[in-house]
Amino acid sequence: MSSASPYPILRLRAKEDRRLRAGHLWVYSNEIDVQKTPLTAVTPGSVCRMEDAQGKALGLAHVNPHTLLCARLLSRDPHVSIDEDFYRTRLQQALLMRERLFTAPFYRLVHGEGDGLPGLIIDRYEDHLVLQAGSLGMDRDLPLITAALQGLLRPAGILLKASGAARRLEGLEDRIEVLFGHIPERLEVWENDCLFQVDPRGGQKTGWFYDHRANRRRLRDFAQGRRVLDCFAYLGGFAIPLAKAGASAVTAVDSSAPALAILEENARRNEVEGLRSIHGDAMETLHNLRDRGEQFDLIVLDPPALIKSKKDFKEGSIAYRRFNDMAMRLLTPGGILFSASCSHHLSRETLLSQIAFAAQRGDYQIIGEGSQDMDHPVHPAVPESNYLKGFFIHRREELPEEAEKTA
Amino acid sequence: MSSASPYPILRLRAKEDRRLRAGHLWVYSNEIDVQKTPLTAVTPGSVCRMEDAQGKALGLAHVNPHTLLCARLLSRDPHVSIDEDFYRTRLQQALLMRERLFTAPFYRLVHGEGDGLPGLIIDRYEDHLVLQAGSLGMDRDLPLITAALQGLLRPAGILLKASGAARRLEGLEDRIEVLFGHIPERLEVWENDCLFQVDPRGGQKTGWFYDHRANRRRLRDFAQGRRVLDCFAYLGGFAIPLAKAGASAVTAVDSSAPALAILEENARRNEVEGLRSIHGDAMETLHNLRDRGEQFDLIVLDPPALIKSKKDFKEGSIAYRRFNDMAMRLLTPGGILFSASCSHHLSRETLLSQIAFAAQRGDYQIIGEGSQDMDHPVHPAVPESNYLKGFFIHRREELPEEAEKTA
Repeated sequence: MSSASPYPILRLRAKEDRRLRAGHLWVYSNEIDVQKTPLTAVTPGSVCRMEDAQGKALGLAHVNPHTLLCARLLSRDPHVSIDEDFYRTRLQQALLMRERLFTAPFYRLVHGEGDGLPGLIIDRYEDHLVLQAGSLGMDRDLPLITAALQGLLRPAGILLKASGAARRLEGLEDRIEVLFGHIPERLEVWENDCLFQVDPRGGQKTGWFYDHRANRRRLRDFAQGRRVLDCFAYLGGFAIPLAKAGASAVTAVDSSAPALAILEENARRNEVEGLRSIHGDAMETLHNLRDRGEQFDLIVLDPPALIKSKKDFKEGSIAYRRFNDMAMRLLTPGGILFSASCSHHLSRETLLSQIAFAAQRGDYQIIGEGSQDMDHPVHPAVPESNYLKGFFIHRREELPEEAEKTA
Repeated sequence: MSSASPYPILRLRAKEDRRLRAGHLWVYSNEIDVQKTPLTAVTPGSVCRMEDAQGKALGLAHVNPHTLLCARLLSRDPHVSIDEDFYRTRLQQALLMRERLFTAPFYRLVHGEGDGLPGLIIDRYEDHLVLQAGSLGMDRDLPLITAALQGLLRPAGILLKASGAARRLEGLEDRIEVLFGHIPERLEVWENDCLFQVDPRGGQKTGWFYDHRANRRRLRDFAQGRRVLDCFAYLGGFAIPLAKAGASAVTAVDSSAPALAILEENARRNEVEGLRSIHGDAMETLHNLRDRGEQFDLIVLDPPALIKSKKDFKEGSIAYRRFNDMAMRLLTPGGILFSASCSHHLSRETLLSQIAFAAQRGDYQIIGEGSQDMDHPVHPAVPESNYLKGFFIHRREELPEEAEKTA
């Protein structure tokens, strides 16, 4: 079975093939039979042929011998070559899906495991592409990926914007560099009938968060005549379409002055007037607004990941509860809070339980759920590729007979 | 503390107040301190004042001394009266929310725990209301509820359509009776730009399933030019708007001949032509379609609850897997399967794992999630009030280089 493979072999220990056979794409280092196939012999970031304990091929994977998550499956076919053609095919599959489901070329083109390319993220800004490589293997294969993208999309520019904890686990330095063509200082995004300026180099991640597109669109239905508060406004992805949808006032809070400067520019470009931006720490600002007696009818609470690793779990969970509690104190009866989390380590159930805890003080009902948009596909067997969750929470009206209850 | 209550007292055992204090509304019979306050002394279906072990009031509840789930909290205020006024206030709260969030009077007006009225379901068909009472207490209070509804909405008719396992647990017989006014043989529903005929007496539940409204709307975006299969079509809530949204062909399967007759009438009324209806068992029909080599680009798989009680869990879970597997066999590359479950006993995670199991044979990605619509609010502390889940599953395109993989 293991004949004539150009790729070195890694053999799993008995029964450790179960996860891969169930559809998952990851292998942990303690699942490798290092007696038979030492991990130390593997070139970091190279492609290996994965085999079960009986020597039956399981497919080809990117391998990093120095990490706990040591192998990520690229193909179940052990006979393919992981070359430019391989990447072009996968990218083409990803592109076909987006072209069918989206009318404009502004989307996440590749979402890692969900698109069969573990460790790779590509966001498309019309003619410009911004890549994140979260594994050593993908980092090493960037020339192949760049070439495949050029052939497929003829982009004006490709930027690598790779940073963060995932890369550090892989032993990778942060990299921001143009891989091809030209990337201007600002890119543009067309979303929910608004045009946004985005800073691909200085902004968060690739510059924009496409994952909330559908949740933002849905919130517009609640905006008419409402006082809106966006607690982590970033470039205005929520705030600006809500203003355009008829909100009576919009307050956008962010701790980043450069982000707020772009948000204000985005407001002007979309002819949004009277948007109030507040530069400051979110929790501190929520307290200040409350001390001033301000109230809001529609609140967006979409913090950055408050839980960055399993170690932060307890503290981070409590932070979610506190933010929800503070937001609920600012919410009018009849108002709606959209409460989201993008923490990989916070399950939907745990977020819900923190919301339930905060909700004990009042009279709330959950009227909807939001998840990551279609361009962030989830691999059915890789729950880890599902990271974004959000709840639409309605505060029930207080009626005379009920008022004494909450007194 | 326990002075002058017109309601008999039920005292919880030490620490058994925790669930109620965390926001939940249910008490189990083994949590009652039956030494101090015997359940046998309680009139079945009456209202009791609930107290913790120290005699501190927790609120008022409907009590059925003969069931495991013996008390359902109606109010945390022990001083209110559970009378017509009480119901009018709760109904008014529920109505305010719907009037704010929906443009037409076709919705679930009361969703049990989510609207602070455990055991009560009310679906609104414009001037007609159809009620389900799932607890002895609500069944007993129907005259109060009917009077409150008359005062609030001046309906043309109120129908009680109460049946099913929940009532049997409560020791209640099935009841179908007009509580007020007149209920015609057919009611009408306006949803997703279509008009549907509904049979309130002979149909399932109250006659219509409003819970999927938003999921149906969302699926329309995928319908243009697609061959659609609806495996449990009922009255055409999915099939007809998909046909109107430009599907190239629609096949509607149902095991109920009366339901299919109404579906066909609904198709005519909405000027949908060429809809094919198949009367038969869903699984059998899927096999037949496959044997005939038929393929579909958009499949709706929304079975009735395949798990009716915890005992059915294993068998029911496997049934979900089999249906998903069969549906995937009929799905073209590039096609979309909407796979839902309304089983209370099947969690979102278990449904997903059954889908993942079925998906092992092919190349699938989950591009979205659906939940029950806004008129079916979830109580944050009562996860049981969240029962509907659905996944939008995309089968990836097969490209030449990939074709050998699945061969």
